[in-house]
Order: sequence, then C-alpha cells, then structure tokens
Amino acid sequence: MDLLTGLTTYIQKENLFSPDQKILLATSGGVDSVVMAHLFKQAGLPFAIAHCNFQLRGDESVRDESFVTTLAATLGVPFFSVRFDTADYATEKRVSIQVAARELRYEWLETTRKASGCAYIATAHHMQDNVETVLMNICKGTGISGLHGILPRQTTLVRPLLFTQKKDLLAYATEHNISYVEDSSNITIKYTRNFFRHQIIPVMQEAYPGVVNNIAAGIERFREAEELYSQSVIRHKKRLLSQKGNTWMIAVLRLQKTVPLHTIAWEIFRDFGCSSAQLPQVLELLHSTSGRLVETASHRIIRDRQWLLITTLAEQEAPLIVIEKERTHVVTTDGHLKIKEVSKTVIPTAANIACLDKHTVQYPLLLRRWKQGDYFYPLGMRKKKKVSRFFIDQKLSLLQKEKIWVLESGKRIVWVIGMRIDDRFKITDSTKDMLLLEWSAI
Amino acid sequence: MDLLTGLTTYIQKENLFSPDQKILLATSGGVDSVVMAHLFKQAGLPFAIAHCNFQLRGDESVRDESFVTTLAATLGVPFFSVRFDTADYATEKRVSIQVAARELRYEWLETTRKASGCAYIATAHHMQDNVETVLMNICKGTGISGLHGILPRQTTLVRPLLFTQKKDLLAYATEHNISYVEDSSNITIKYTRNFFRHQIIPVMQEAYPGVVNNIAAGIERFREAEELYSQSVIRHKKRLLSQKGNTWMIAVLRLQKTVPLHTIAWEIFRDFGCSSAQLPQVLELLHSTSGRLVETASHRIIRDRQWLLITTLAEQEAPLIVIEKERTHVVTTDGHLKIKEVSKTVIPTAANIACLDKHTVQYPLLLRRWKQGDYFYPLGMRKKKKVSRFFIDQKLSLLQKEKIWVLESGKRIVWVIGMRIDDRFKITDSTKDMLLLEWSAI
Repeated sequence: MDLLTGLTTYIQKENLFSPDQKILLATSGGVDSVVMAHLFKQAGLPFAIAHCNFQLRGDESVRDESFVTTLAATLGVPFFSVRFDTADYATEKRVSIQVAARELRYEWLETTRKASGCAYIATAHHMQDNVETVLMNICKGTGISGLHGILPRQTTLVRPLLFTQKKDLLAYATEHNISYVEDSSNITIKYTRNFFRHQIIPVMQEAYPGVVNNIAAGIERFREAEELYSQSVIRHKKRLLSQKGNTWMIAVLRLQKTVPLHTIAWEIFRDFGCSSAQLPQVLELLHSTSGRLVETASHRIIRDRQWLLITTLAEQEAPLIVIEKERTHVVTTDGHLKIKEVSKTVIPTAANIACLDKHTVQYPLLLRRWKQGDYFYPLGMRKKKKVSRFFIDQKLSLLQKEKIWVLESGKRIVWVIGMRIDDRFKITDSTKDMLLLEWSAI
Repeated sequence: MDLLTGLTTYIQKENLFSPDQKILLATSGGVDSVVMAHLFKQAGLPFAIAHCNFQLRGDESVRDESFVTTLAATLGVPFFSVRFDTADYATEKRVSIQVAARELRYEWLETTRKASGCAYIATAHHMQDNVETVLMNICKGTGISGLHGILPRQTTLVRPLLFTQKKDLLAYATEHNISYVEDSSNITIKYTRNFFRHQIIPVMQEAYPGVVNNIAAGIERFREAEELYSQSVIRHKKRLLSQKGNTWMIAVLRLQKTVPLHTIAWEIFRDFGCSSAQLPQVLELLHSTSGRLVETASHRIIRDRQWLLITTLAEQEAPLIVIEKERTHVVTTDGHLKIKEVSKTVIPTAANIACLDKHTVQYPLLLRRWKQGDYFYPLGMRKKKKVSRFFIDQKLSLLQKEKIWVLESGKRIVWVIGMRIDDRFKITDSTKDMLLLEWSAI
C-alpha cells in the first residue's frame, strides 16, 4: 500500500475526520510535517498550515519560518505563523524550555484552529514516536492507560501519520523531490525521548528487527484491551457504589469479595481524590472497626459498620453561623432554623422543636456541627454527657451523626438539634418568656 | 522489610501454598536457588531439593551437582537429582540445547514432585527475570496476555521470589555467608534474554534508574487489568454466542455493533481455530452475502442470512456408509436409518419414510451427506434437478442443508432423506416388493 492510500485508509479506519473538514497542519518544516502537508494536498483534503517560531536558534529559526511560509504559498493554502519569546516565557513560568515550547505551541494552535475555522489540528506523529512514548511509559511504570500511546484522535488533535514509519516518510520525500529543513521540532522533544530513539530502540532492533511494527501492533491491541478493561470497571462501579444524598456508599463485604480488588478499589477511590499512596489505608478500612476513616484530597472515606461511606470534605468542614438577637431565620446546608420569642405556653413535644427559657440564653448564639469533645447536660439529667456518648446511646449511624448540628450559647450547648435540649436551659416554673426554636431538615 | 518477611508476605498475598505443604525446590546451585533454599529453611517451610545435571559443562556440571547434594544434606532435606544426555536429546528431537534442557527439566521435576509427595515445584525466578520476560514479549509484539509476565503460580509451578530483586538475593547471600556456584542455570536461558539483561535494561536504567521496580509494579497492574479484560470478554461471548446442536450461532448485526470489534472477534474465533491471519476474512463475512464461508484449522464459519454459523470441520467431512443387502439398521451422527423389505402395501406419507420399488434398487447402497453437484429426479418430475436448487425451492437454511443425507444406488440418488425420493425408484403398478426406509433424526 502506498503512503497516500495508507493515509486515507487510516483516516477512515480511525474515523479521524471527514474529507470535507478543514484541518490545521502543525508544520515545523521537518520531513514529517512537510510530507504530511504534501500528502494532504495530493489527497485533495482541505487544510491550512500553522508554524511556530520559538526563536531559540537564531537564524535557523528564521530560515525554518521562511521555508514553511514558502511551502504554504507553493501548496496554495492559508498560512498562520507566530513568534514566541520562549526563553522569557520559560523563565517567567519557571518551566523547562521544552515545557514552555509545548504550552505555547498548543495554546496558539488551538486559538488559530478556531479562528481559521478548522475542525482539527493535525500533528505529524508517526509510528516511531508512538512506540517511544509507550516504551517510556512502561519504563516509568504505568497501568493499562499508559499503553495506548499517542491516540489517533484526542479532543481537537488528530495524528493521521501514526500508521506509518519514519523511513516511509523519508522515502516519500526522496521519491517526490520534496525538500524540508532538518527537523527543528526537536526543540519540543525531551532528552529522554531522544535517548530512547537513539540508544534503546536501535539496540532492541538487534534482537527483534521488527520491534517497531511489533510494538505498534501491540498498541492497537492494548487500546482495545483498555476499552474492555473500562467496560468491566464501569460494571463493577455500578455494582458497588450507591448514592444517598451527598453520600456514596459501598458495602464492605461486596468490595472484599471483588476480583481484582486492588484495581477496582483504585478505579473507585481515585474518583474520590484518593492517591495511590493512600490506597492501602483505604483498603485497611475493609478490616477495621467502625469509625475509622481516611481523608483524601477531596473526600472522607469512613468505615461505618458494614459500609464505607464517602462524603466530600466540603461537607465536613464545620461552618459556624453566628446568630444575633434580631435574627429569626437561619439556613444551613442541612436545614432551616426558625427562632421566635413567645410568652410561656404549652411546650410542644416534637423533636424538631426546642423550648428554652429565654433568660438563660446569651446572645449571640452559635450554630455549628457537633464535634468530638462536645458535651452537654441532656434534659432530665444532672450529669454532663459527651455528645458522642449520647449518640451511641441513641444508636445513630456515622452517617446520621455527620449531619447533626448544635446550638451554642456562651460556650455551652443549648440544644443538640433535633434530639435533646440541655437541662440548664429548660422551661421551669419560674420561666416567663420562652425562646421557641424550630428545625426543618432539608 | 527483610527478605524472609518479604517471602512469607508474598506467599500469603499471592496465596501460593499453605505453610504445611511440601515444596520441591528446583536448585541449580546458583545464588537465586541457593538463597531460596536457605530462606525456606529459615521460614520453617517443609521442602525437598531437586537438581538437574545437564552434563553440558563437564567437570563444572559435576561440581554443581555435588555442591547441591551437600547443600541438601546440610539443610537436612530430601534430595533428588538426575543426569541428562541433553546434547543427545537435542539432536534426536531436533531442538536447541536450551529447549532440550527446559523440556527435560520440567518433565523430570513434575515426575519427581509427584513421587516425592510435594504440592508444588518452586523455581527461583526473581523480579529481573520477570521484567526481562515482559520486555521481550512487548518487543516481540504481544496482546495483554503477554504483559502478565511470569505468573506467581501456574499449575504445579510457583515462583516465590518474584517479589525481589537479584541484588537483594546477592546481599542476603553475603550477609549470611551463603556460598553458591556461578549460576549454571543460565544454560536454560536464551541468547535474547541475556541480551536484554546485559544490553538493554542497563541502558534503560540510565534514563529511569527505577525501571525494574517500575515495570514490576506495572506487571502487577497488567495482571489485574487482564482479569478485568477477561471478565468483559466472557460477557461479550455470552451475549453473542448461542448453541444449537453442534452449531454455534452469532447474530451478524449484534457482532457488527460490538465495541471493540476486532478484539472480541479475535477472542471468539480463536476458540474455533481461527488464526490471526484469517481474522480479516472472518470479519469480511459480516459484510458478505449468504453462503460465503471461512475454513479455520478446525471449523467452518458460514454466513447464512443474518447469522454466522460455526460448525466443526469433522461435522463437514462427508462420511460414507456402505449398506449391504443384509443390513437393516444404520446409525449416523444425525440419525438412524431402518431398512425393511415388505410386500406391496399402502404407502405411508410421512416425510421420514420412503417406499421404493425393491427391484429398482441395486446393492450395496451408499449413505452419505449430499454434496454440491448432486442431482436427482424429484418424485413427480420428469426432469432432473440439482439437489442444491431443490433446497432453494424448499427454502432450507444453510444450517438445515448441512444436515441432509442422501441414499445412493448405483451412482443414482434414491432418496434425499427426509425430503423427497427419486422418481425412478417410486412404487408403480408393476411393483411387487417394496423397500421401506425409515429415518429417525437424532
């Protein structure tokens, strides 16, 4: 199959774009991108050319820019170019020259793509680039997602030359008398990639001459394997995760029995801010007692009897609401509190209503979530009690406990909201005015 | 974690064997296997030692054998050894010395394992061996199954040292004053492996010093990814394949819509003898007309309207059953044929019964599957007709056609069994004796 047929077949097979969509070709002037431009021209595909001058190699940078300018004119296609102060940008952003060049390049290309009405940006990555990427990922230590390499299509980027080897691009250039500049795009290539290209792959070829094609074929299989992997992961997530309000729940027994446990746990908990270093701690929760928890970057994972409960850290952050004397209505994330002064009357018995002796209460009141260490004198008791202990007696689940608010007056808890008032604030025979508080959970 | 704790932890984590099971340690005398034996002793695990002398290095082979003999005596464990004429075996079987050594070794180890009442054979493969294996597989071109490397447990083989690096085994030997011989087990190691060990991995370490650990961690993840991959494959197979008698069926539309098509098709059709080179042909059946087929090593895959039908080649091989005059009962893979001579009587009309004029029939009769090119004179017709054409008129499916038998007399078809007799053999007014044939499909 010749290179042109190879290109159109690959575009179709990978469904990269349709033949009437205009493509912006990122063109350094090196053989890969120049051959890509000629192939697009020959295939009759509509395209424009974009060139970045990173101004890092003096005259040579100017030479490349003018080369690509001429190329675009010769091919009769729209041309866009830009000059970057790459070195300044790198210093300013404290990144390497490679990172700077890459960031500047992709940002400008995307802007230019939109402005020029192009559907995609095409880069001239070929099979060797892809094989290098995957080998580097493997050596760095990767999971299955590191094996798919450079994707043929990724958001607005397409790589229509991935099917072909560098040597075929060179042969095409020679055969068609296509001139090009020495690949200046290498400026965006890291040292390690060049090391793999020049030191490792050639040595591998001594043992396996077909290594580039072999790995490229492997990459295609890995991409499909990854798809099947993802299908399984989705099924396990559906089976294991359920949601109740803002809380995600996982049955401990069901997770314990899951095969393969480690990977499924990782795929689930990474979505909840878990790092790979934290995963062993999360897995320990499967064998721990109730009340143990792991805090990830964004969530708390709590063991609560036969469940793991997952809530966002934002949910946990104790808000503190100051209630001045005039205030009659307070809204929290979990409910509304209404406050009314009334003359002494019949005391309602609903748990969501508290009646206090107004003159025992000091303003401002504080409304907050309960916390470890809180204690109060439950109505009817002479001795103080830890709120946490009180909850155990009341058989509250961890999930229920997380939602409990308290009302504080002068550092003393007035009401464990929805549950019990403090004995020191109760209505007595001598009470004249009452403070009527009503909590409505959302 | 020290090496001993590492070993017991790994045995437990991978569920390799229980501490009371006796293990046969394959011991070359090299540092890996000698350290393994010492570790088993220290851990208090019951074991025996087995040594193969391949007799390929003269005195050195004898030295190794006597070294391991002494080691077993020192450790106070049962010892088994064998001497192979490896070179002769290789010549005789026309295999390489490495292959010969490996075959001889594993066969003898398995026999010795059984004879000695051991639960498993343990080999001293370590992390580097595993990383080499996976890198070689990747360079050769592999699917996901090539990424799991050397498995910790495989049938009766266990590899309890996979968790550790060579350097840790060497350090342990030094620290505990353990002597060993220079690793003679290298005789079973191919040139390519040594090439990766000495030429490729050290160069990779220049770019990524942690490459061995990184790839080893990757291998663990790939093993779990492969498990998830397999779960998905099983689901797709269940969804796509159905069985009817000896025939497997796949709905074309459903397979066409399957993602990822290529891998799922491969996983399905490889079970039916399809080679990777044949897979594109099989996939073409999805877009072909009825009647097109692909023959794999063991099966035929036939496009039949909206279905792909898969039958074994054995099913297709036309058996030929010769029926002598005395025979009254014939059994085929698809049914029974009963043959009876009777005086002329009322002709039964059931399709599975044929009544012929006995005197028109020549013995021996032949019972066989119909084939392309067969023709006959269907009862009531003066003109001959191709059997295949007759089937089209009768609207038989490919599947139904595959099952049709014919009875032949003197090169002429007497009966397309279960469907129609030949006009030339029918009962006429002048018939005196009848041949009554009855077919019972299985």
